[in-house]
Amino acid sequence: MHTLSLTQALCSQFASSSKLQDAIIGLNTLYLLLCGALVFVMHAGFAMLCAGAIRSKNTMNILLQTVMDAAVSAIAFYVLGYGFAYGVGDKPNGFIGDALYGLSRWRSHNYDLATGMGGDTGLGWQSWFFQWAFAATATTIPAGAVAERLNFNAYLVYSAFISAFVYPVVVHWVWSTEGWLGYVRRAPYGRLFGSGMIDFAGSGVVHMTGGLAGLAGCVLLGPRMGRFDSSGRPVEMPGHSASLVVLGTVLLWFGWYGFNPGSQLLINSLANAAVVGRAAVTTTLSGAAGCLTCLGVAFTRHKAWDLVAGCNGALVGFVTVTAGAHVLEPWAALIAGSTGALVFEMGCALLLKLKVDDPLAAAPMHAAGGAWGVVFVGLLAKKQYICESYGKDCTEPGSGVVPHGLFYGGGGRLLASQVIGVISIFAWVYGLLTLLFAVLNAINLLRISAQEEQAGLDLSKHGGSAYYYDHGLGKPEKAPTAAESVLTPSPPSTSI
Amino acid sequence: MHTLSLTQALCSQFASSSKLQDAIIGLNTLYLLLCGALVFVMHAGFAMLCAGAIRSKNTMNILLQTVMDAAVSAIAFYVLGYGFAYGVGDKPNGFIGDALYGLSRWRSHNYDLATGMGGDTGLGWQSWFFQWAFAATATTIPAGAVAERLNFNAYLVYSAFISAFVYPVVVHWVWSTEGWLGYVRRAPYGRLFGSGMIDFAGSGVVHMTGGLAGLAGCVLLGPRMGRFDSSGRPVEMPGHSASLVVLGTVLLWFGWYGFNPGSQLLINSLANAAVVGRAAVTTTLSGAAGCLTCLGVAFTRHKAWDLVAGCNGALVGFVTVTAGAHVLEPWAALIAGSTGALVFEMGCALLLKLKVDDPLAAAPMHAAGGAWGVVFVGLLAKKQYICESYGKDCTEPGSGVVPHGLFYGGGGRLLASQVIGVISIFAWVYGLLTLLFAVLNAINLLRISAQEEQAGLDLSKHGGSAYYYDHGLGKPEKAPTAAESVLTPSPPSTSI
Amino acid sequence: MHTLSLTQALCSQFASSSKLQDAIIGLNTLYLLLCGALVFVMHAGFAMLCAGAIRSKNTMNILLQTVMDAAVSAIAFYVLGYGFAYGVGDKPNGFIGDALYGLSRWRSHNYDLATGMGGDTGLGWQSWFFQWAFAATATTIPAGAVAERLNFNAYLVYSAFISAFVYPVVVHWVWSTEGWLGYVRRAPYGRLFGSGMIDFAGSGVVHMTGGLAGLAGCVLLGPRMGRFDSSGRPVEMPGHSASLVVLGTVLLWFGWYGFNPGSQLLINSLANAAVVGRAAVTTTLSGAAGCLTCLGVAFTRHKAWDLVAGCNGALVGFVTVTAGAHVLEPWAALIAGSTGALVFEMGCALLLKLKVDDPLAAAPMHAAGGAWGVVFVGLLAKKQYICESYGKDCTEPGSGVVPHGLFYGGGGRLLASQVIGVISIFAWVYGLLTLLFAVLNAINLLRISAQEEQAGLDLSKHGGSAYYYDHGLGKPEKAPTAAESVLTPSPPSTSI
Repeated sequence: MHTLSLTQALCSQFASSSKLQDAIIGLNTLYLLLCGALVFVMHAGFAMLCAGAIRSKNTMNILLQTVMDAAVSAIAFYVLGYGFAYGVGDKPNGFIGDALYGLSRWRSHNYDLATGMGGDTGLGWQSWFFQWAFAATATTIPAGAVAERLNFNAYLVYSAFISAFVYPVVVHWVWSTEGWLGYVRRAPYGRLFGSGMIDFAGSGVVHMTGGLAGLAGCVLLGPRMGRFDSSGRPVEMPGHSASLVVLGTVLLWFGWYGFNPGSQLLINSLANAAVVGRAAVTTTLSGAAGCLTCLGVAFTRHKAWDLVAGCNGALVGFVTVTAGAHVLEPWAALIAGSTGALVFEMGCALLLKLKVDDPLAAAPMHAAGGAWGVVFVGLLAKKQYICESYGKDCTEPGSGVVPHGLFYGGGGRLLASQVIGVISIFAWVYGLLTLLFAVLNAINLLRISAQEEQAGLDLSKHGGSAYYYDHGLGKPEKAPTAAESVLTPSPPSTSI
Repeated sequence: MHTLSLTQALCSQFASSSKLQDAIIGLNTLYLLLCGALVFVMHAGFAMLCAGAIRSKNTMNILLQTVMDAAVSAIAFYVLGYGFAYGVGDKPNGFIGDALYGLSRWRSHNYDLATGMGGDTGLGWQSWFFQWAFAATATTIPAGAVAERLNFNAYLVYSAFISAFVYPVVVHWVWSTEGWLGYVRRAPYGRLFGSGMIDFAGSGVVHMTGGLAGLAGCVLLGPRMGRFDSSGRPVEMPGHSASLVVLGTVLLWFGWYGFNPGSQLLINSLANAAVVGRAAVTTTLSGAAGCLTCLGVAFTRHKAWDLVAGCNGALVGFVTVTAGAHVLEPWAALIAGSTGALVFEMGCALLLKLKVDDPLAAAPMHAAGGAWGVVFVGLLAKKQYICESYGKDCTEPGSGVVPHGLFYGGGGRLLASQVIGVISIFAWVYGLLTLLFAVLNAINLLRISAQEEQAGLDLSKHGGSAYYYDHGLGKPEKAPTAAESVLTPSPPSTSI
Repeated sequence: MHTLSLTQALCSQFASSSKLQDAIIGLNTLYLLLCGALVFVMHAGFAMLCAGAIRSKNTMNILLQTVMDAAVSAIAFYVLGYGFAYGVGDKPNGFIGDALYGLSRWRSHNYDLATGMGGDTGLGWQSWFFQWAFAATATTIPAGAVAERLNFNAYLVYSAFISAFVYPVVVHWVWSTEGWLGYVRRAPYGRLFGSGMIDFAGSGVVHMTGGLAGLAGCVLLGPRMGRFDSSGRPVEMPGHSASLVVLGTVLLWFGWYGFNPGSQLLINSLANAAVVGRAAVTTTLSGAAGCLTCLGVAFTRHKAWDLVAGCNGALVGFVTVTAGAHVLEPWAALIAGSTGALVFEMGCALLLKLKVDDPLAAAPMHAAGGAWGVVFVGLLAKKQYICESYGKDCTEPGSGVVPHGLFYGGGGRLLASQVIGVISIFAWVYGLLTLLFAVLNAINLLRISAQEEQAGLDLSKHGGSAYYYDHGLGKPEKAPTAAESVLTPSPPSTSI
């Protein structure tokens, strides 16, 4: 009887434990699925933000780029990118992954896609989905910097190049367990300075990569026609729709709640859940602080409440906190957002001074703001939160060696790793993309002709205009063709 | 002591098991709630896509239809539709459900709404919500095909008809455990060809239904005035806002991550979670392949990078993969998307040749693309994935009889079921809707007058125009009335 | 051997139980995170709805307000608001919270933020996030009522005032366990009439607060120039974009699936899950009924299918059901939505009669609709559902004393509490905001000058216009400045 009951208890225990394990896998899958979807919706945000912030004659061009960034990156990341980022094959190394191409060459070193799961971590199909959404984000950021004069063929080349190779290598460095740069590098590898770089959701990995690619592009492209007058003073080129700018900003804000809180990757423990919740809080506060800071700076300058400044401020606040959303205290997140906004303002001023024309300010926002966010972690990452996020036990003896923020007395090893990370990403991304754009320039594929630029990319490359209005006058307007537009300088549609 | 401990262990075991059961119900509820919300947001996508793709003078008309599709379908699906789809009453049968009308007549055959749950599956209130979101989608698809000339009263009739009756019957056939057509038909019923039709998230059930209803409408309505010139050649009628088209497309893409991954209905097991994750991957890849294929086709034709083609391609990629997102390998999803895009292009060409005017290409996309998606499953559904998704054990002896894709050596029974499914849905939906539209035509309720069409539906039926711009000149523009607009052919607002 | 096995069973039991506890915390965190994100996306909805519904010359103004509502409320709610709402410090009381300012002064009375969790409830960081999203909503509602003539400085003051103080106090009354007004007040405090007010997701707490603040503002501001003609008859001032209105409406609808279903706060039990699922159903049905009701009313009046009426109807349906989404039967939700729509129509008519100009009808929608929603719960809250939602056992003897809906024979105590709630919120919010706006008026900070109003807020305060179109004519348009626009009454851009 006793034995029977005991056996039953144990069996039931086992069944319950297996059911629990299954539920946990379901929970983590749901978490990554939905956070991944939120990251994806940032494409709606980028599309609207970019479209609204440029002139209407190039709208279809930039919209198509955003849609294609998602499509091109999906295929590139499926065929090569994911493998370069996370594959652990025959010759695992700190520089680049060497397996998992096409989601097909699964090896025992990698988790088991056949069952869709890896050990008890819940990684599987949804991991590719979540990581792809980040790759797509990195790929789409440069579009704003090179807007209104890039040759569409050059766009096709760089978007595949970034999503298949440039970005995945950075991911491998920082986020894979093999990478030479990251905080999660597994034993027996040694971590950089005994610490490694902390970049939670990618201020460096995603935003610097995208922003630096954009910077390389707009430096080589040169400014848009008329952006600087004959005496070199900048001429405002306002975007064509503030409504789209705000829609894009708020959708990006929305998506960031998947971008940052999702980056813990697992949610099935008290520690993980605390990190997820905290990331939502710090993200909110940093964006809010950035928004108010840029708004204040603009008001000081122009005595006007500048809508675009407020939107940019919020976004740079998010970019900055992305590296440390899991390890910053709320008040530190406020500082991150405000200082990030100031870094952004300085970046914008510097570009203007250098006569570099970045229509969306993508480089100051994502490259400068991202770099500052990475460094900021080295200053104010809280030890207890690091332990919580990375599954360490801060309370055990010897945990004093957990590198953390300099201002908390955590030593300089984390900060040094962060700085090395920033420099390495800069060298890798800016170097490679400058090379690529230089080659494209040499074969005359980089920039459109002056005539095409004047007519706008929509007419010259995309067969029409983004907008036609017909107020019920019975005569459907005929879409102007590129030829007509260039030949006759009259408005394509006089009733608009 | 032993006995006491044992009792405690068992009690604690029981408590833990019950708590686990509760958590699993919570997990599945959260999963359906959020995936249902994602499916709903596709209405924002449809609204923006349809509005952007038509002329501005009919914008309010199609926007109102999208909003009302959600409202009308909610009430129709509550009162009748859900019962016709899933009700199991006194006379259960394979054709139509016979209980659960008004969510009220719950019987022992049905799950228990009082507790909100059904057994351990977690179905309950959220099941109605999730299913309604699909009904609303099927109801809103036809709007694009009949746009710019349908009488609003006819719209009111068909939207109630589809959501209360036409669509729920198809659901019953394919997705209920009683349905004559489906893969999940329960014993002791026999399944069609010993297999039954596999349609995961509704390439057939939702998209063919919506697309065929639209096709029936636009065939009977005839083309828009001026769509074909005197010699019968098509005249382009470009939409009025590319920004809205892209916004709509990306929001639909976003929503599809609820549409497909949500259709596993449960997520609390390793197998379910793997299916959910895989569905996100295959959905992404098929949409990406469709996008690039249509873009390539358009470039080959016009030597221009056609934004609308890229958007349509992505959407038809999603439509195509919807039937098999759970059972296709990633590379098969790429093929599904590309071939779906070609089917779509052929459908568009055929309609043009037949002088059928489908402004949004809803029929080629949802009816043709959907049908191809259903058939595609018969070719490339992987046995192991079918077992995983439908809770079968592929490894046990005799599992060889699981019908699967023809190209995997799975025999023709699944393919035959898919083909019968396509034919049956076509006959049911196209037949019923043709009948309905013919009756509406006979009583002169189908199409608006030529004068109204020229003025636009917004002025003639909705009391104004969708857009007014006032650039701060102090004189608020007066909204033009229908009378003014028809009498005086001047622009309603000269400052625009 | 027995003893060993038993020990193992118990240990394993313990481990499993702890793992389960962890998973439950993860589940509840994910639930609040994602529902909070959905509540936040309502800001995209508000921004688009408000922008589309006003004249284009004030677009940037209202867009900036929506973005800043999120930013200002985040900081105000972090520093003070959350503490006033939920803090339990040294002197807990029914009127206002007294701890938790800056998320820092955690005491034993409050849950433990250090671990991110409170007991087994899963409250923690994500609780602040979720509650902030509601605060931001309450803060952003008034913008529609005071649109097109409020001084931006006045906006800055009221948004901080509402999110830091006015709203949190109402939350404390109704939703905290200390509050004098709420159904969840903890023993040994006595509940109002032995019942307390039921307001699930804030028809009163959020929507009345926002709507009444707006009402106070538009009463004191007076109507927009030209809103009433010399004989006192209203002049229509149509919004500038129906597409934005619909986009906003559908995004708000989408967000409401986080707003209402999320308000159960926990999802890890069968009862909680049933409430969450039911809330999604009742929300849908009430919105649908409201939409069709307002559309019918408008058609009866104008013989036109009024898009804006349909949108407003859906929204007021959601506002009305928000108080009782958890305790109403589906048919009752239909009644809630329809009657709420009628209350809204009466409110609009009353305001017109009183010559109060509320451009977005924010007061009739949120204040009147919200109040009616609160009262409605007193009439039709179902006892069984109340028990389910609030963790009571209806089946035990003596449960007859659970106050519930009057029409179900539940007595008048709940209804009386609801009425007291409505009156109290009215007095508190309308009183305080009237005071604030009167002071701002006295120091001439409330309303912009006539000249500025004529030019539009965008030119006079925000440095430009929301829209510029450039159709590829080669000459980038120069942004008009406020000075130019006021001096020269020519259109800022003749090619538009």
